[in-house]
Amino acid sequence: MSTNKATSSRALEVCFSPALIHLHDISDAIVVVIDVLRATSSICVAFANGVRSIVPVASIEESYSYKSKGFLVGAERDGEMLAGYDLGNSPFSYLDPIVKGRDIALTTTNGTQAIAAAKDAYQIVIGSFLNLDSLCEWLIAQDKNVLLLCSGWKNSFNLEDTILAGAVAEQLEPHFTLNRMCDAVIGAIHLYSIAKPDLNGFLERSSHRKRLERLQIDKDVEYCLTPNLAPVVPVMVDGVLVKFVA
Amino acid sequence: MSTNKATSSRALEVCFSPALIHLHDISDAIVVVIDVLRATSSICVAFANGVRSIVPVASIEESYSYKSKGFLVGAERDGEMLAGYDLGNSPFSYLDPIVKGRDIALTTTNGTQAIAAAKDAYQIVIGSFLNLDSLCEWLIAQDKNVLLLCSGWKNSFNLEDTILAGAVAEQLEPHFTLNRMCDAVIGAIHLYSIAKPDLNGFLERSSHRKRLERLQIDKDVEYCLTPNLAPVVPVMVDGVLVKFVA
Repeated sequence: MSTNKATSSRALEVCFSPALIHLHDISDAIVVVIDVLRATSSICVAFANGVRSIVPVASIEESYSYKSKGFLVGAERDGEMLAGYDLGNSPFSYLDPIVKGRDIALTTTNGTQAIAAAKDAYQIVIGSFLNLDSLCEWLIAQDKNVLLLCSGWKNSFNLEDTILAGAVAEQLEPHFTLNRMCDAVIGAIHLYSIAKPDLNGFLERSSHRKRLERLQIDKDVEYCLTPNLAPVVPVMVDGVLVKFVA
Repeated sequence: MSTNKATSSRALEVCFSPALIHLHDISDAIVVVIDVLRATSSICVAFANGVRSIVPVASIEESYSYKSKGFLVGAERDGEMLAGYDLGNSPFSYLDPIVKGRDIALTTTNGTQAIAAAKDAYQIVIGSFLNLDSLCEWLIAQDKNVLLLCSGWKNSFNLEDTILAGAVAEQLEPHFTLNRMCDAVIGAIHLYSIAKPDLNGFLERSSHRKRLERLQIDKDVEYCLTPNLAPVVPVMVDGVLVKFVA
C-alpha cells in the first residue's frame, strides 16, 4: 500500500445507476456507495456520533424485524419517515444522543438498494460530502480499483450523487490510471466543477432537490452538502456497516 | 400543433443508456436515438445524400440476409467495418454517390441496438450534430413528449452522445415544462455548455474518442461534430427509417 502511487494502474470508474452496475467488474474493486440526499450522509453522521453498527436491509418488513433484537430501526420511502420506526432518513435524527453505542437496521428508497446492488464488490464503503476528505485519503491509501456508485433516484441519474462522485474523482484522479477512466468519471468531474462554487444553488434546479423541498428539509440538504462534518469511513464487514478503525 | 408553446406541458427527458430506457414511459413520447460516433451521424449523411431507406437490424447475420434482396449492407462492430459488407460506420461512406436512391440494411455496435431498445416509442427519430437545428425545429413543432436516448458505449454513459443531448435540450427547453425535467436533462445541458466552445477538444479526454483514435478516424470525428451538415429528419415508419417530408 502506498499513498503516493501517481503511476498506479488502479482503475477509477463512476456508475450513474445501480441498474448499470453489471457493466463494471467490481470483484476486485472497492465500491463507494453514494446517496447524498440522504442515506449515506445520515450513515456518516451516525458513525461520527457513536453508532456501533448499521445493517442495511432492502425491505421495510425486514428492517422492522430487527426491533425485537434490540436494534433501533430506520425506514424511509419517497423521502418520508415511516410510522412506527425510530429513525427516518434525516441526518439530524442521527445526531440524537440516543443513537450512541446502538445498532441500527436501516432501509431507504435508494441508498440501501444501491448497497445491495454492490454486494459482489471486493469491499463496500459509504461516501457523502460529510466524509469527503477522510474517504478520499482512505481510498488513496488502498491499492485497489475504485467504483463510485451513484444511488440515483429509483435507478435514474441524479445530480447530487454525481457531483459528489466528481468531488471524490477530482481528489483520486492523480493516483489512478487516466486511460482507464470511463466517460462517467470525466462527466462527473466536469459537473462538480460547475457545482463547486455553490452546491446548494446548483442543486436548486435538480428534480430530486425539488421533490425534497415539499418535505421542508432545506436544512437537511444544506447540511448534507457541507464537506467534512463527519470525518469517518463506514465500511461493510460481513454484511454490517461499521466505522473503519486503522 | 404549434411552434411557440412556451407554456406547454410536454415532458423533456434524457436517458444516458439503452439499459435504462425502462425507467421512462415512452409510449407517448418521441424518442430521439443518438449515437454521435458514428451510427446516427452516418444515417443523417445517408439521407442527406439521397438514400431511400435504412433498415436498422440488431444482428450481423440479419443484415447480411438483406444483400440478396438488393440492399446495400452496412455493419460495424467495435468501431471497425466488417469484411464482406458494402458500408461501415464512417459518415464518408455515405457520401459516395452509389448510395443515392438505395435501400440499406445497417447494424452497428451501439446505434442500432439503441433503436431496438426504443421500439415501443410513439415515434423514433435520429439525432446527431449533423442535423441538430432541423431536428430541434421538427421536435418543437410536434406536440409530444420527447426522450433523448443516448446510445452510449455498450450501455455505458458516454460524453459525445450526452453533449448532443445537451445541445438539443438547450434548444427545446423553452418549449417544455421545466418542473418535469429530469436531472439527466440538466446534467446534459451543463456538459454541453462546457463542451460547446471546442467540441473536439472536449472529447479528447473521452474514452470512446480514445478508442476510436486507434482506428485513425480523426476526420470522421471532426465531421460528426460539425452542426447542420445534413439537415434532414430521419424518422422510423413501420420499422424502416426514411427521411421526413413535410
